Amino acid sequence: MSPSSTLDIEQDAVAFFLALQDQIVAGLQTLDGQRFHEDSWQRPGGGGGRSRVLADGGLFEKAGVNFSDVFGSMRPELARSLPGDGTDFRATGVSLVLHPRSPRVPTVHANLRFIKRGSAAWFGGGTDLTPYYVVAEDAILFHRSLKTICDRHDSSLHSRLKRWCDRYFFLPHRNEPRGVGGIFFDYLGAGAEATAGEPSPPPGTEWEVDPGKIFAFVRDLGEHMMEAFAVIAARRRDESWGEREREWQLLRRGRYVEFNLVYDRGTLFGLRTDGRAESILMSLPPEVKWRYAATPEPGSPEALSLEAICARRDWAEKGA
Amino acid sequence: MSPSSTLDIEQDAVAFFLALQDQIVAGLQTLDGQRFHEDSWQRPGGGGGRSRVLADGGLFEKAGVNFSDVFGSMRPELARSLPGDGTDFRATGVSLVLHPRSPRVPTVHANLRFIKRGSAAWFGGGTDLTPYYVVAEDAILFHRSLKTICDRHDSSLHSRLKRWCDRYFFLPHRNEPRGVGGIFFDYLGAGAEATAGEPSPPPGTEWEVDPGKIFAFVRDLGEHMMEAFAVIAARRRDESWGEREREWQLLRRGRYVEFNLVYDRGTLFGLRTDGRAESILMSLPPEVKWRYAATPEPGSPEALSLEAICARRDWAEKGA
Repeated sequence: MSPSSTLDIEQDAVAFFLALQDQIVAGLQTLDGQRFHEDSWQRPGGGGGRSRVLADGGLFEKAGVNFSDVFGSMRPELARSLPGDGTDFRATGVSLVLHPRSPRVPTVHANLRFIKRGSAAWFGGGTDLTPYYVVAEDAILFHRSLKTICDRHDSSLHSRLKRWCDRYFFLPHRNEPRGVGGIFFDYLGAGAEATAGEPSPPPGTEWEVDPGKIFAFVRDLGEHMMEAFAVIAARRRDESWGEREREWQLLRRGRYVEFNLVYDRGTLFGLRTDGRAESILMSLPPEVKWRYAATPEPGSPEALSLEAICARRDWAEKGA
Repeated sequence: MSPSSTLDIEQDAVAFFLALQDQIVAGLQTLDGQRFHEDSWQRPGGGGGRSRVLADGGLFEKAGVNFSDVFGSMRPELARSLPGDGTDFRATGVSLVLHPRSPRVPTVHANLRFIKRGSAAWFGGGTDLTPYYVVAEDAILFHRSLKTICDRHDSSLHSRLKRWCDRYFFLPHRNEPRGVGGIFFDYLGAGAEATAGEPSPPPGTEWEVDPGKIFAFVRDLGEHMMEAFAVIAARRRDESWGEREREWQLLRRGRYVEFNLVYDRGTLFGLRTDGRAESILMSLPPEVKWRYAATPEPGSPEALSLEAICARRDWAEKGA
């Protein structure tokens, strides 16, 4: 992004993310029936945030929607891994992870962020769905909804960001995707060289040079990305489940923890910039189990779900 | 270590670690009353291991004692962070993590390893105790037992490895030690420059150049490091506990997961060298909880335990 436009975008992004947190929390409170608890916090090195959490709700066992706007100086070893120059940075964004109590309702994650380091600035984010029991029509709905948003901005965008998501939300040590995917992007606006090391190609040239277009996409995504989840939660929340389904959910949540603590950029960025641990780790599930070498019985609903996840289908196109 | 001595040490280390796994497992079976389950495995890139696990036992909710001997070529980015040259490596060792069911009995970890990269070779390892409810006499016993072992080899060794442990088993994002500590060391035998970046000074010069002395210490430690835990477990296993103590244990286990997945060298080394995930992650507790901003009531046994942990006392000297 050119320096002249960065300042405008930066201020607008902060205002947008603050309003977006309000909008999303309002929607989730309607869905859950309970209210979120809010903590405002300051980061000693600069900036702060507003964490909103709901625990033991009607739908959610734990739900966190975090806004943060932090700035200051980052450690040189972290700076080296990012586009831009120097150690001055600002990072602002909204991130959420929703852990429903019912194993029939998927866990969902979404995050939108604007990061500036020296003269470079970019947007990153995405959203992905982690069902414990994969239901094809839900995965299709989630992906089509994202495709509809992407298509409004660039016809090649969805397939690129979907592939990027498939590669990003992947646990190499398990050889498993974290869920049925969604979309993911990073370094949007930082220039082609910033994404050269990325596992999937960045969007086209036009996007690289027009921060206004990138921001328009980020806004649109923010405003609509939770719609599909609301429908899926309404569809599944009253379906029955028992101990077996709960056990499977707790074991799969272990994978969620493994991904977030070993690989997730947002989590590690937060921890390495001395962010507020409770807000960063809000994404961790409320209850988790690890059992040595636990594998579902072949042909069981659990095994079929895992197979569906590992197949990394092109859900938006399925049956189209 | 000089190349001529490395090969002897290497073979002897493998044989020692194999026998040590047998010795430790036999002792733990006596303590628990149940037998371990064994899985032998091969690593596609070279080498393999023998994992022994016990779940839902008389004392242990989950106990894992792992032997591994892996070799091959490591990724250049991992190699860059280690002493030595090239990407050829061999890593062999024993590691164990014991998660008792009772919150009155501490979790204990121990690990001894021999690693060779190109022309460099070194020993690493240690053991540390993570009580949920700190009992001073147990922490004192644990540390004195380690001091007794260390003192047989070098009078300055214990205080150095104790400080190293305090700094290593620390969660910066929580500003909390993981437990009451123990001893930790790495790169022993790789030369002074290998430990220059370490948070605590390495042992004296004599140790740096005599692999035989280092190995003698590692053997002695391996053979005696579980003795104090056996006494502590016997002291505490029949003490009563209820839901409140269980809840605290599950929350504190969350810290254990955070440490192992974000910081632990052995875990990250294993994951980055395409090790067997189930064996590497055997260390994770069987059941864990995360609650947003959970802090114990001031003055409660939980708060006092956390304070005792954060004080990082010189337990071996206490009351001496």
